[in-house]
Amino acid sequence: MNALGQGARAAARAMALVSPDRKNGALWAMAEAISNSTSEILAANKKDWEAAEKAGVKAAYLDRLSLDAKRLQAIAESIVAITDIPDPVGSVVKEWMRPNGLRIAQVRVPLGVVGVIFESRPNVTADAAALCLKSGNAVILRPGSDSYGTSVAIHKALQAGLRKSQLPEAAISLVPTTDREAVGMMLAGLEGNIDVIVPRGGKSLVARVQTEARVPVFAHLEGICHVYVDGAANLEMARAIVLNSKMRRTGICGAAETLLVDRACASTHLASLVKMLLDAGCAVHGDADSLKIDARVTAATEDDWKTEYLDAVIAVRVVDGVDAAIAHINMYGSHHTDSIVTNDKAVAEKFQREVDSAIVLHNASTQFADGGEFGFGAEIGIATGRMHARGPVGAEQLTTTQYRVYGAGQVRA
Amino acid sequence: MNALGQGARAAARAMALVSPDRKNGALWAMAEAISNSTSEILAANKKDWEAAEKAGVKAAYLDRLSLDAKRLQAIAESIVAITDIPDPVGSVVKEWMRPNGLRIAQVRVPLGVVGVIFESRPNVTADAAALCLKSGNAVILRPGSDSYGTSVAIHKALQAGLRKSQLPEAAISLVPTTDREAVGMMLAGLEGNIDVIVPRGGKSLVARVQTEARVPVFAHLEGICHVYVDGAANLEMARAIVLNSKMRRTGICGAAETLLVDRACASTHLASLVKMLLDAGCAVHGDADSLKIDARVTAATEDDWKTEYLDAVIAVRVVDGVDAAIAHINMYGSHHTDSIVTNDKAVAEKFQREVDSAIVLHNASTQFADGGEFGFGAEIGIATGRMHARGPVGAEQLTTTQYRVYGAGQVRA
Repeated sequence: MNALGQGARAAARAMALVSPDRKNGALWAMAEAISNSTSEILAANKKDWEAAEKAGVKAAYLDRLSLDAKRLQAIAESIVAITDIPDPVGSVVKEWMRPNGLRIAQVRVPLGVVGVIFESRPNVTADAAALCLKSGNAVILRPGSDSYGTSVAIHKALQAGLRKSQLPEAAISLVPTTDREAVGMMLAGLEGNIDVIVPRGGKSLVARVQTEARVPVFAHLEGICHVYVDGAANLEMARAIVLNSKMRRTGICGAAETLLVDRACASTHLASLVKMLLDAGCAVHGDADSLKIDARVTAATEDDWKTEYLDAVIAVRVVDGVDAAIAHINMYGSHHTDSIVTNDKAVAEKFQREVDSAIVLHNASTQFADGGEFGFGAEIGIATGRMHARGPVGAEQLTTTQYRVYGAGQVRA
Repeated sequence: MNALGQGARAAARAMALVSPDRKNGALWAMAEAISNSTSEILAANKKDWEAAEKAGVKAAYLDRLSLDAKRLQAIAESIVAITDIPDPVGSVVKEWMRPNGLRIAQVRVPLGVVGVIFESRPNVTADAAALCLKSGNAVILRPGSDSYGTSVAIHKALQAGLRKSQLPEAAISLVPTTDREAVGMMLAGLEGNIDVIVPRGGKSLVARVQTEARVPVFAHLEGICHVYVDGAANLEMARAIVLNSKMRRTGICGAAETLLVDRACASTHLASLVKMLLDAGCAVHGDADSLKIDARVTAATEDDWKTEYLDAVIAVRVVDGVDAAIAHINMYGSHHTDSIVTNDKAVAEKFQREVDSAIVLHNASTQFADGGEFGFGAEIGIATGRMHARGPVGAEQLTTTQYRVYGAGQVRA
């Protein structure tokens, strides 16, 4: 494992200096190699799938694990899509002159080595590797044991792409074992050879990584996202945003988990919103006001305000205006994504300023919490930590900066 | 201690929303209160100083600890200087439109609670507190035991300034004990109530913080800074830059510790540079080529390339061109600050691109590695980590960002 880290570090140094064209060339070659390896990858996936089924894993999990020709094609296409993202390396964040004539430029440079620890989804192998390569980083991939064979097959194709572009194969390293011990070594930073860890998977994986990691982590533990329907909200807009925020896809981190309704509009808006959700097949755990609306509403407990259902369930609460909404969200939320529906600009501004979350929307669905929707081209995840990257983590967020100072012989007085 | 953390967290939430004018008003009031408390602070400092002298601490340490009316006036003035810095909170880093009409703004918001652990210099109490306040953060200060009484007296004045501006006193909290255990609790993050730790002091303090902290740290362990004199360097410029980089102040982190000279100009430049340093009172630990220059040069060992002397000592080595210089710096340096002297723009560009340090200068002294010299107005330290803040840490680096998304009812397809 430590040799793996040293190899990745050396590769990272080399990758930091590779031109945008060569990196894009490698991405094309990687996509081509995946396409050319379809039968090998699907065969490996079939083995993984059969072993997982035999072991009795859940259907949803089996579905995440399984690949077919179409899904594999989508993986190859998503690698190609990354060639379209602007290359962040070398871009100038800021540049200024000092009175003594020194010119200072803050320039983006790669972070170094990214450790990615993931579970069943084999597409992470390619997605994470491609985004790390684009941003000039090396990556160490640690797939879950269930998808290990598939990941090895995909990794082989990625390395063929690197070879074709004469880039170091260690730029995309795969942990050669499924031992849990290897994860521990990664979380300890592989002797200084991992700069950041990105966990991709369920809450227990993320929790373990956040608790044990001795290096920075880009992650979110959960997405307890809120929609607050303000007294000055248009009902039709509120209905559309609430329905989309909750029901478009219930299993993603940007899905709404709690609906807060301003008491000022409860008499006109609450019943409409609650019935709409119930009719759409969403269970409603409501407060006293919501319980009166419909017999299908069940009583919410304190726990509901803290729960990420990731399912067709929503908690509903009437609050006394925007201040109470903000207080609820900052108390029970997960600092991920929250939205206000209102036609009052001042109230919206207050909400956006005071809600302490990575993404705060006005009159838009929480499900826009996504690097693709932000225009980042791709994301390796969404971070709710306050350090370095907050919100969707794309190619730019996988860089750090360096100050380059241009002088003409200046010395300090 | 945990109550202290909770208080700081609550204060941080409030401080995040305070207007620039009120924060500047508080800074003025803090400076005034320090000025008005001159006799109390100097009396407390006299006690600290006498106790330290009695305990037999070193003269350099005693000097760092001691205050007089002039030094105290400088502390008050440096608080006032921070009112001139642009307020980073609420400033827009980037703003763009999506094809669906959503407008996305990335806006600076405070980091939260900053923990500052420092040693003898009592001015850190005021400097760190002022910069944290400016950037909308709360701060928890943990002074060294030797300067504790002085820090308490300064802290009292700072709190008077906060009260006058009706800001929460917990925004500038002081650890109420000099127990070592309190440091351990801060390094563990005070139950999630410290977002980042800034150690200010000697190498052993920084090393302890970096090793033990469970929260992010903005710091540099050491500044092993290099000047590389390239074959295409003007000798007069090289002499001025080398002399200033090493000898202007030898005890700061931006002082040069190693001089690398290109073999291509060694016959014309090496003797001049080495003799200049020796004549300026600098000891030279040289490689075989340097040893031949002057009998005063002593032989460098492998250890010299890794040593931060912080003194009038320099290591000198002849290298085979810019590639060897880059390799030496990336191997032995501390990723802090390095400079190249050359009239060859292509070589300079290569050096700046390939040297993996926070600050890389061309034709300028390494002693410009300083937030003030960068135009940041003030700094809380210099970071060599790759995450979040790299280089001088000023008010802007003490913020994170939030995405504010402005819609007109958009839902995700």
